Amino acid sequence: MAPLSSSDETDGGLWLPVKRARAHELVIEVIEDRILSGALQVGDALPPERELASSLEVSRAGVREAVRVLESQGVLRSQPGAGAAAGTFVAALPREALSRFLRLHVALSNFTIEDVTEARIVLERASASSAARGLDGAARARVAEALAAGDAALGDRHAFNEADTRFHLAIADASGSSLSAALTGAIREAVRLPLLHAIERKAEWGDQSELLQKEHHAIFEAITAGDVDRAADATEAHIRRASAVLFAE
Amino acid sequence: MAPLSSSDETDGGLWLPVKRARAHELVIEVIEDRILSGALQVGDALPPERELASSLEVSRAGVREAVRVLESQGVLRSQPGAGAAAGTFVAALPREALSRFLRLHVALSNFTIEDVTEARIVLERASASSAARGLDGAARARVAEALAAGDAALGDRHAFNEADTRFHLAIADASGSSLSAALTGAIREAVRLPLLHAIERKAEWGDQSELLQKEHHAIFEAITAGDVDRAADATEAHIRRASAVLFAE
Repeated sequence: MAPLSSSDETDGGLWLPVKRARAHELVIEVIEDRILSGALQVGDALPPERELASSLEVSRAGVREAVRVLESQGVLRSQPGAGAAAGTFVAALPREALSRFLRLHVALSNFTIEDVTEARIVLERASASSAARGLDGAARARVAEALAAGDAALGDRHAFNEADTRFHLAIADASGSSLSAALTGAIREAVRLPLLHAIERKAEWGDQSELLQKEHHAIFEAITAGDVDRAADATEAHIRRASAVLFAE
Repeated sequence: MAPLSSSDETDGGLWLPVKRARAHELVIEVIEDRILSGALQVGDALPPERELASSLEVSRAGVREAVRVLESQGVLRSQPGAGAAAGTFVAALPREALSRFLRLHVALSNFTIEDVTEARIVLERASASSAARGLDGAARARVAEALAAGDAALGDRHAFNEADTRFHLAIADASGSSLSAALTGAIREAVRLPLLHAIERKAEWGDQSELLQKEHHAIFEAITAGDVDRAADATEAHIRRASAVLFAE
């Protein structure tokens, strides 16, 4: 950035390095417009950095910053090197990007644990209902597996938290709506660490994990029995009770 | 990036500019760790770019790329200039970032319109129920205002779409859970353009907008009557019917 005069508090606004600061935003806007209009689709390659910089009349640094931003959103994927497979491509990687996003904003308390709990209840009631309406063999097996992993991990805080996450995700994934599943997964992932810290503070963990696991079995039973309302209600009761106990202090 | 040898197809992997490519990721990781541990909170300032680059032993370009990425996620906010208010601060701007993210992934068909419709139904059933359980005066006025704007815009596709969006957002905002509201808003914003394009293709728009608006009135009536189930069911029926009609062809 160009140095500013010492009197910038009053007139600095006139001399900000405008073009420099906006280069990457311009590039992002151009790429986004092409995506929104359908001209750029998943798998398509971007022109090389040098070419993009020259045709948009911005610095190569500006192009690189824009690419980094869109990579972090799972919209672009860069393959380093110079071979035929190398380059920057339009990608389809929303899930990890969404998880990271929510994790950060939960950590910053831009969303509170109460907010997250309410959103989890809304989304997971729906996925439990949907699972109770019908589950294919593979999806059922994944839920059952996660449940068994929880049974085997009752004494181990860390392993139990992993199995617990897998159980909730398996139900969300089985529901068939990829956006709801991605949101459920991202939210669950966002609270994994706060949840683990809460679990670590609990002295009487053995009883807690047994109770949580009993509730998981009840949810699974309602799902396999095809009882839509019971599956949803058991899920809500479980999330509410667990949040109240774990985040009480 | 350093030029690669022409034989990079086979051995290029050995000579990729590793440190260069990963500089920004390292910086992001360091900042994220500080946020997740609570050491960096909303409003805190980052050290100046030059200082951060030197203490992390990365290039200033790497620091700048990392800052751009975290800005785009609403986690950092840069204030240009050199005065006391200038610098890069930890921010609380999740909503716009979430909207942009979903808009791009919907455009890339990483989430289909059907996925989006299902997620909208789940979230908006919940916010309509919550609104029916009780709405304060200001929230009620915002919903009523959006409804009136729709009545006034029946013949105008663009204005009607805006009023329609406002109506759904006002109900979501009234529900009190900021994460659910942000998700509802982001999803609604993500389909605003596809919805407008669908509306523009409809020849008999007058009838459509009247039907949509009749449904909005029914939802509002159920909410103000405090009828939780009717509010949720009317919302689901409205979203399902509208999606089926608008995205049919």
